[in-house]
Amino acid sequence: MFKVGIVGANGYTGGELIRLLHKHPEATIHALASRSQAGRPAWELFPTLHGTALGQATILDLNDPRLSECDLVFLAVPHGVAAEMTPGFLAAGVKVIDLGADFRFKDPALYEAWYKIPHPAPELLAEAVYGLPEINRAAIRGARLVGNPGCYPTAILLGVAPLLVHDLLASPLIIADGKSGVSGAGRSPRPDLHFAEVTGDFRAYGLPNHRHIPEVEVYAGQIGKKEVKVSFTPHLVPIPRGILMTLHLAGKTGATTESLTRVFQDFYAEEPMVAVLPETDLPHTKAVLGSNRCQISVRVDERTGQIIVLSALDNLVKGAAGQAIQNMNILFALPETTGLTDLGLWP
Amino acid sequence: MFKVGIVGANGYTGGELIRLLHKHPEATIHALASRSQAGRPAWELFPTLHGTALGQATILDLNDPRLSECDLVFLAVPHGVAAEMTPGFLAAGVKVIDLGADFRFKDPALYEAWYKIPHPAPELLAEAVYGLPEINRAAIRGARLVGNPGCYPTAILLGVAPLLVHDLLASPLIIADGKSGVSGAGRSPRPDLHFAEVTGDFRAYGLPNHRHIPEVEVYAGQIGKKEVKVSFTPHLVPIPRGILMTLHLAGKTGATTESLTRVFQDFYAEEPMVAVLPETDLPHTKAVLGSNRCQISVRVDERTGQIIVLSALDNLVKGAAGQAIQNMNILFALPETTGLTDLGLWP
Amino acid sequence: MFKVGIVGANGYTGGELIRLLHKHPEATIHALASRSQAGRPAWELFPTLHGTALGQATILDLNDPRLSECDLVFLAVPHGVAAEMTPGFLAAGVKVIDLGADFRFKDPALYEAWYKIPHPAPELLAEAVYGLPEINRAAIRGARLVGNPGCYPTAILLGVAPLLVHDLLASPLIIADGKSGVSGAGRSPRPDLHFAEVTGDFRAYGLPNHRHIPEVEVYAGQIGKKEVKVSFTPHLVPIPRGILMTLHLAGKTGATTESLTRVFQDFYAEEPMVAVLPETDLPHTKAVLGSNRCQISVRVDERTGQIIVLSALDNLVKGAAGQAIQNMNILFALPETTGLTDLGLWP
Amino acid sequence: MFKVGIVGANGYTGGELIRLLHKHPEATIHALASRSQAGRPAWELFPTLHGTALGQATILDLNDPRLSECDLVFLAVPHGVAAEMTPGFLAAGVKVIDLGADFRFKDPALYEAWYKIPHPAPELLAEAVYGLPEINRAAIRGARLVGNPGCYPTAILLGVAPLLVHDLLASPLIIADGKSGVSGAGRSPRPDLHFAEVTGDFRAYGLPNHRHIPEVEVYAGQIGKKEVKVSFTPHLVPIPRGILMTLHLAGKTGATTESLTRVFQDFYAEEPMVAVLPETDLPHTKAVLGSNRCQISVRVDERTGQIIVLSALDNLVKGAAGQAIQNMNILFALPETTGLTDLGLWP
Repeated sequence: MFKVGIVGANGYTGGELIRLLHKHPEATIHALASRSQAGRPAWELFPTLHGTALGQATILDLNDPRLSECDLVFLAVPHGVAAEMTPGFLAAGVKVIDLGADFRFKDPALYEAWYKIPHPAPELLAEAVYGLPEINRAAIRGARLVGNPGCYPTAILLGVAPLLVHDLLASPLIIADGKSGVSGAGRSPRPDLHFAEVTGDFRAYGLPNHRHIPEVEVYAGQIGKKEVKVSFTPHLVPIPRGILMTLHLAGKTGATTESLTRVFQDFYAEEPMVAVLPETDLPHTKAVLGSNRCQISVRVDERTGQIIVLSALDNLVKGAAGQAIQNMNILFALPETTGLTDLGLWP
Repeated sequence: MFKVGIVGANGYTGGELIRLLHKHPEATIHALASRSQAGRPAWELFPTLHGTALGQATILDLNDPRLSECDLVFLAVPHGVAAEMTPGFLAAGVKVIDLGADFRFKDPALYEAWYKIPHPAPELLAEAVYGLPEINRAAIRGARLVGNPGCYPTAILLGVAPLLVHDLLASPLIIADGKSGVSGAGRSPRPDLHFAEVTGDFRAYGLPNHRHIPEVEVYAGQIGKKEVKVSFTPHLVPIPRGILMTLHLAGKTGATTESLTRVFQDFYAEEPMVAVLPETDLPHTKAVLGSNRCQISVRVDERTGQIIVLSALDNLVKGAAGQAIQNMNILFALPETTGLTDLGLWP
Repeated sequence: MFKVGIVGANGYTGGELIRLLHKHPEATIHALASRSQAGRPAWELFPTLHGTALGQATILDLNDPRLSECDLVFLAVPHGVAAEMTPGFLAAGVKVIDLGADFRFKDPALYEAWYKIPHPAPELLAEAVYGLPEINRAAIRGARLVGNPGCYPTAILLGVAPLLVHDLLASPLIIADGKSGVSGAGRSPRPDLHFAEVTGDFRAYGLPNHRHIPEVEVYAGQIGKKEVKVSFTPHLVPIPRGILMTLHLAGKTGATTESLTRVFQDFYAEEPMVAVLPETDLPHTKAVLGSNRCQISVRVDERTGQIIVLSALDNLVKGAAGQAIQNMNILFALPETTGLTDLGLWP
Repeated sequence: MFKVGIVGANGYTGGELIRLLHKHPEATIHALASRSQAGRPAWELFPTLHGTALGQATILDLNDPRLSECDLVFLAVPHGVAAEMTPGFLAAGVKVIDLGADFRFKDPALYEAWYKIPHPAPELLAEAVYGLPEINRAAIRGARLVGNPGCYPTAILLGVAPLLVHDLLASPLIIADGKSGVSGAGRSPRPDLHFAEVTGDFRAYGLPNHRHIPEVEVYAGQIGKKEVKVSFTPHLVPIPRGILMTLHLAGKTGATTESLTRVFQDFYAEEPMVAVLPETDLPHTKAVLGSNRCQISVRVDERTGQIIVLSALDNLVKGAAGQAIQNMNILFALPETTGLTDLGLWP
């Protein structure tokens, strides 16, 4: 059994790491840490832990030595904090998977432009690997530091990769109309996330300059080997989890729903975590609730020449904790799907 | 008091007409009719009617003579049925507002192409008036037959009209990414509308050829005096009511959020039912829950040149019954907002 | 037009007073005040106000002289604060309706026992009138200070009053299993009211000593002219508004659903705001969403002799702001239902 | 690997059996059968199956011989149907776990009184075992036919068992105020289960004579060795899954929250699937979402002498499919929690 630690155990991403690692057959949770919750029993953070041994575990402080005893730590902490903690873990021989933004970019200037702080550990950027297995598996295999992708970028990049690789777009503009469940906004209470305000409501937010844009532009550009631009409009859906991404793209002449569905099915034929749907169905966020899978459909609107790609994933699983464990499996040379094969919870 | 009748009183649109007309100070509900529910007391259709006199009213059959005693009837019935009933009402001197698709088009061929039946009363199409007051108020004033707009088209046309009138778009393509509450799909039970399936889920449906497309292309073309094309992707939101429309448009060089917000505010300055929001806010569907208002914001993504317009309305009010009553007020020469000034229900 | 003011305009009760008074034909909102929000435009508190003149009104400080120009002020502020403000308003000739707990009790010791502070204005308790019109209408008529009932007590007292008046219970114990929408917990963000935590969840809270218990015991005791005891178990329902109260009561021999339904229907025959349902239906919280009505059903479980009473109301309307306006109508000698006849919003 | 079959694979209970057995390490799904869906691929029933091998499996007819090749079949079919199919399976050496009502009673007259049909296989009732492991584990071990408990009865019996065993109640009356998510009503579309009707609503239904009453009275009577009576009031909660049961019981003098919490903790100390919560917490349905655990709290209202027990479970897991697999594990002499240790999905 590998020993793993979770830093930032109290947030939703931390909680999802707990849920998934609790059932992982090859990893054991050795340390749970949280700056604000240190000293409390784990069940006070997540009532799901009542009746389990793990629920009695005490939340540790961020500098607790148990963390350094781990084979790997997951960092689910604010950007900036992760980069400050990482050098110490690496020096202690602990692999690091960061679920925030600190190790997603090679270019510290890009990081600083969007995150408004100088990068705290720019010397590690060359070594850090972007953890989207479907695109970057080979590089992940030998890494000791992984920058886990954002939830929205995972949905966009998986949705657009087959079209970019096969050069099937007539324009470099990706219009990404994203819809996310509320857990994507974190666990801290906010007036605009109060149940009574959100329930029954649907709205956009934060446009037009969401921080996930540069991540998409960098990696979509690499996948397609030419520059792309992203216009991203996120929306808040009154559901706890789930992202549905709708991509509006200009297609080349002659594309059909049938032909592009074939392209997608071939592209992802060997991928265990991506399901390209038959033409008779469309993705549901709930079909992947709690699951590490991503569902994708593609449609061609022949009247206008537009391609519409729809991708659905659970923002806390394939969009965060599940993908991080997929990366952990790769780092530990385990079968990539170990502990990640659960079906979505329906209904 | 004007006497009005509602045909199709059992559906959600019919129910919303009941709710709004029940409090209208100048109209009285003279007849409620429904093919399937005739003979039942009204409270069996809507439990909101318990404790009211109207709740004791008996639902009439579609050919009940009380309907012909009305000054105006609202038709909330399937397409095709409305066109069959309308000539009789007009002959009896009863004005008609049809909330379905039968009188939205001048061209019967277009109707037939999208609705798959020959138009049952093509001779009335020349006279019928498209009932979007903000665009077509003058024509509505003298009409006796109004085709009330669709819910999605209302959201799209109000969102795009200022840009079309002022010729501010660089492309004729309107990408309309629509999100609708479940009442938009009607009241009939269906497996995919079962509570347990919809709650916690978000999905697209019915793309790429939704029947609301031709309505938008015709009237957007008239507003802008040149052809437009619409790529429309509807989504189902797990809320009972509400549409949020996100329009992705190619802007001309130099547009800014500030300049376009000014254009929208000027365009709708005198419109009581359209609120262009300050730049610091964005539309909420819940802000217009039960209200006849439409909220609109516009944003320019200067990195990509894209214009994003967001419009929110209640699909059963400004998207159906409320707009129909707004039209009724115009037909009866009442102040246009009579009975329609309620605020949204928050939270 | 009477001039009214709202103190505590930023909370959900304050917002509901705004919504209902905005459409009241005989009252005009003369002043909106809030300690924390003074100086902001009203639309920043409630996005429902976009596009209205009222939305441009500036929120006043609590000591703004405009409040004293009103004929009546509604106090929607924390307990203790209301009692401190009230003497000044009364001295200025302004009638007061307090929506909190400060004027619901005659006995300051009872107040202090449950609210843990000495009553700030005990000299006013003799004069203050409990504002449940169905029980206390005559006393309200001449009052200048009304203590508006709590939401749960309204649901319990309306549900149990016919049985108490007719002495139909075999035991003095009222088991009240209450279920409330989230707005009942107020608008302030809290970790346990975050959308992601509440959606999909159902739980009890705060038992066994909820502060609404003494209010019920006092007034139920007066109604039945003998002591009762209340065992109250509140639950949180993932809906924005609505209370469903389930009362479990020991019946006397011979009671039937039919006989008790008749008792209830007779008891409330002249009450415009209480609908006793036919035996074939049961109350829905959504049937009174946004409405000032209360729906009630009664059932006898003949196997066990238990009486089950179900009452549904909107906690912000009949449970707070609507009832306050009903009281205002009585104070101003207006027809009691003025501005309060709206149907619930369905669906 | 044991081979198992699921009859009635298309309903929610069938789907949950699929989800749980798909990850069970010792059982393999050998046959999926459904009268109405035979011939379709499994993914058309549950979109969660996209991208899995099982999703390509063909749904079989009810008399397909593959079912008889199984070691055990789960019957998730209407009452009456299960009893008709069971003799054939038993004759073929296939163990049977019925998730309906057909094998929950020893007395065919009781079955007929509540289910309104003669029992189709009364000769099997003596042999059938009631499958509530916490109460009846020894009898289950050697069985070949198990009647899996109802969802509500599981919540009631687990909540009341410690009090009955220790004779801590002052009255034989169990007042059970139950709240269930919508999946408890099945998957068939119905007008009153339409999303738009249920969302935002809370209501009671079906009182006072729910079919789960006799099951509780029989087994609670056995547990406590004396007759009890149940007054049961079920409510519909707008959540997909979950039951919260609130039991109102008359306590004996001297009981306290602390003393009874201790009784419950001792009673369930060795039970892996029942978590008695600390006094500082209360059960959440969402804390056991997708999990086989039941959370329980007990409170004493010392003012009235009432005991309030709260129990939460997932109606499709501990209330149906999970409990059935727990029984399967016992029948196959596997560790009882095999495949059932997942934490709830939070948020």
